[in-house]
This record gives sequence, C-alpha cells and structure tokens, in this order.
Amino acid sequence: MRPVGHGRTSAIGVFDSGVGGLTVLKALMERLPLESTVYLGDTARVPYGTKSGEVVTRYSIANAEALLEYEIKALVVACNTASAVALPALEAKLPIPVVGVIIPGAQAAAAATKNGKVAVIGTPGTIASGAYQSALQATNPQLEVHTRACPLFVPLAEEGWIDGAVPQLVAEKYLGDGLLDGGVDTLVLGCTHYPLLAPIIQKVVGNSVTLVDSAKATAERVATVLRERELTRLERGTVERHYLVTDTPNRFLEVGARFLGRPLSGARQIDLHVR
Amino acid sequence: MRPVGHGRTSAIGVFDSGVGGLTVLKALMERLPLESTVYLGDTARVPYGTKSGEVVTRYSIANAEALLEYEIKALVVACNTASAVALPALEAKLPIPVVGVIIPGAQAAAAATKNGKVAVIGTPGTIASGAYQSALQATNPQLEVHTRACPLFVPLAEEGWIDGAVPQLVAEKYLGDGLLDGGVDTLVLGCTHYPLLAPIIQKVVGNSVTLVDSAKATAERVATVLRERELTRLERGTVERHYLVTDTPNRFLEVGARFLGRPLSGARQIDLHVR
Repeated sequence: MRPVGHGRTSAIGVFDSGVGGLTVLKALMERLPLESTVYLGDTARVPYGTKSGEVVTRYSIANAEALLEYEIKALVVACNTASAVALPALEAKLPIPVVGVIIPGAQAAAAATKNGKVAVIGTPGTIASGAYQSALQATNPQLEVHTRACPLFVPLAEEGWIDGAVPQLVAEKYLGDGLLDGGVDTLVLGCTHYPLLAPIIQKVVGNSVTLVDSAKATAERVATVLRERELTRLERGTVERHYLVTDTPNRFLEVGARFLGRPLSGARQIDLHVR
Repeated sequence: MRPVGHGRTSAIGVFDSGVGGLTVLKALMERLPLESTVYLGDTARVPYGTKSGEVVTRYSIANAEALLEYEIKALVVACNTASAVALPALEAKLPIPVVGVIIPGAQAAAAATKNGKVAVIGTPGTIASGAYQSALQATNPQLEVHTRACPLFVPLAEEGWIDGAVPQLVAEKYLGDGLLDGGVDTLVLGCTHYPLLAPIIQKVVGNSVTLVDSAKATAERVATVLRERELTRLERGTVERHYLVTDTPNRFLEVGARFLGRPLSGARQIDLHVR
C-alpha cells in the first residue's frame, strides 16, 4: 500500500548540506528526465562533514520532514556525511524509499577495481563513520580499502579554487602521503563536492587510477528503486524543479550554478524545525 | 538599577561560532583574572562567516539567551561576523552590556597606523557588512581603508594547517594581490581564527606592516565597561570556567586547546532554541 499523495507523478526529494548535492541532482535529471524534483540545501547549517553524527542525524531528519511536505515519493540523501550516519534513522522514520549515495558509490567502485585495491576520500564525518569500508566489504569481502579525510577540499570547491597551485598542493598533501601506496587502482570521491576537483585529483594521482563518483550510480539506483516500487513516472508532463534553502538564497544560486552546470532559476528560503 | 542576578561576582558570557573566540577568551582571562567566564561555541552551526546576516543574527540571539541562563553580567561577542551583523539586535534585546570585537579592533588599528592607511581581512560576512570600514572611519574619518575577504583562512586554522607551503600560498593569493599597494602600514586580523595564522601572514606582508588583532583591545574594553557600570569583581574568589558547545564536545576540546593555548578541562553540550 502506497501512502496517500506519493504517486507516480510525485516529485523526488533530494537534500544535501548545501550546494554539493547538486552534482547528484544533475545526474538524476539526466537519468530520469521526466521526474520532478525538490532539492533542499541546508545552507544555514552547512557544512555537515566536520560535525558529529548526532547533530547530522538531527539535521537530516529535519530536512526530510521539510521535503515530505512536498509529498515526495522517494528521498535521495545527496550528501555523503548524512548518508554515512543518518540513513538508518531516516529509513526508520519515513514512509517512502530512501536512497543514499554511499552504497551506490561503493558498488560502482567494487565494479571498477581490477586489482581489488580501493581508496576512499571524504569528509572527517564520512571517513570516521566507516560507512564506505562496510559498504565496500559487503559488496566484496576481498577488497583492500584505504581511507583518508580531506577536510579542506570542501571549502576549496565552495570557493571555486578548483585549479591552480593551491588545490594542487592540498591534493598532493592529502593524496601523496602513502594513501595510494601498494597499487590502489580505484579512488572513490566520497563527498559530493569533490567532483569539481576531479581534474586536479586525477592529475595528482595519475591516469592509472580510476576516479569513481557516486552521482551517476546513485541516479541509477533511484531509477531501479522507482521501477521496483512502481513509482516511475510513465508519461511526459510538466517537470517541476523546486529549490529550497535554509539561508538566504544569493550564495546558493551563485555557487550552485557551478555544481549544477547550469544557472539556477531561483530558490525559496524556508525555516527548519531543528533544536 | 541592575537586573536581579547580575552582580559583581557574576560571570562574563562569551560566545563565538566555534573555537575561534577562545583567542578573545584567552585575552580576557589574562586582563581580568578574577572574573569567572562562561564560553559558548555554536559548533553545531559553525562557521558563521559564509552565512547571511539574517541567519547569523538569529543564531547570535539564541546564543545570548542560552548564556543569560547563567546570569552573566556582560556579554562579549567574540566573533567578528556576529559583531559585524548582530550587535544592534543583541543590544536591543539584552539587559546587560554587550561588547563586540570590531569597535575595539578598529580603535586599536586607528591608534597603530602612522600613515593612515589600514587594511582589514575577514570572513565574507564581516567584509560584506562594512562594519570595519564604518568603525575605522568613525574613529578617524581621514583613514584610507582597504578590505579583503579571506574565506579559506578559517578552515586552514581549524585544521591546524598554520605553517608550511599551503597556508603561505593561500596568504600570498589573498594578500599579494594589490591589497597592500599604496603603502598600507596596518593590517587588521578581522576574524578570531586569524591570530593562529599571524606568523605566516606577517611573513607574507613583511615586517613593515603592523598586525592588529582585536582580542587584547576587546579585553581592555570589557574591563572599562565593567568599571563604568560598577560590575568589576573586586575580591578574589573561586573563578569558574564553563564551556558550552552545541555539537558533541570532542572536536571542540581538541581544536580549542590550540586556540586557548592550554588544555580545556571539559565542555557541556547544550541545545539551542533556533529555528
């Protein structure tokens, strides 16, 4: 039985701590172009990656509740940190399917590696949670997994410092220091901000290492879940794009265009009921 | 008439978005060693510097209300961004004196400059507010004021990347690009995180530029205000140090020791009533 109001023409809800999740929204819009979307960026509380699991879970539930008011049929947690720490709480609380970015990303990495040696980079919160290690080893217990927190990548991407000497030096510091020793052939970009830094990361790690970002794999997983639950929109209709933010929209619109790869028409500021 | 509960032996309340304000608390503890203090770091919502004035004001009021429960006799806003945007709202709302860091910092800079050419660096929120320009020109309308937002300095200081090639390159990028042209002789560190980067900033700008940080000037201003309002603690007694945080305390205790210059005994996690 499907909850009232969550039908095939309902929108997909997506939330992130800020603009980073727009890289996931972009993949979703490309994979499922008939589906309407409501995106919520919690810009009043960004970033999540340096905060505790307890606080990130509280914020994630508030985000989900705000999106439920739009009668969404599925929720995409487009933030690695929230996916790493809040997915069980969200699944327990919501009457709709919830898709995080970590399991799809881990599966994509497990499929990509040839020698079974995978490295994962992410925020301190994501790495400390151990969620990628668990997801990778659940997919294939033989995988050798290395991880590293790269906290400065988020502010670099947010500020648009994505090429030149500073991000290169930061990437060398994080990635050059033994992380890839022993022949890692696959590197998971375990934060939705990192795809913006992919060119410089690729340059630092070399072309023999395959970069995996979870955006496309997550969009594919959403398509599967909608199909299985008979929630896929079948007929062409008006596609709605809503953008919600918790701080004033200016900075979100400006920085967000860089992440979405196209201008954002507008965003509505809302209040969340968070302690 | 003094509000009930706010007497000479009451504590001084201090808040900041996180750990940065501990540099101000440190100056306060040195200048007023007899006074008890209650410090609140809003670590669940840090940073403030990239958020809007509206949101920072809302958070500042919630911080002040939490500190008022400790019957504080004065409030120190140990965050430049909050001082820049929320001081009028706090002064209107609170029954006790409120001291921000910007006016003391501006007065110290006006006193330090010999040629009247002053530069100010700070968060995007502080610089966009124009608060330093106003405060400097209120002190001396002849001053020539240059400003620059340096958003990456906060994450660098938080991560402890305060020397070596990365902070040096970032400092060169922010400070080398015309900010000091025309003979600026005084540079205001307009963010409580920046004193940690002072050695590298001094190296980049050269020894002919005087760095001004508002911590000492703010502590001096607090001493004056307490004296004027007859709120100074006169007799030696038990000095209490309370630390409150809105996220789990671990990271605050770890990073905070770097800012306070000594280990922190412990911190209590509290919930704020913020929308």
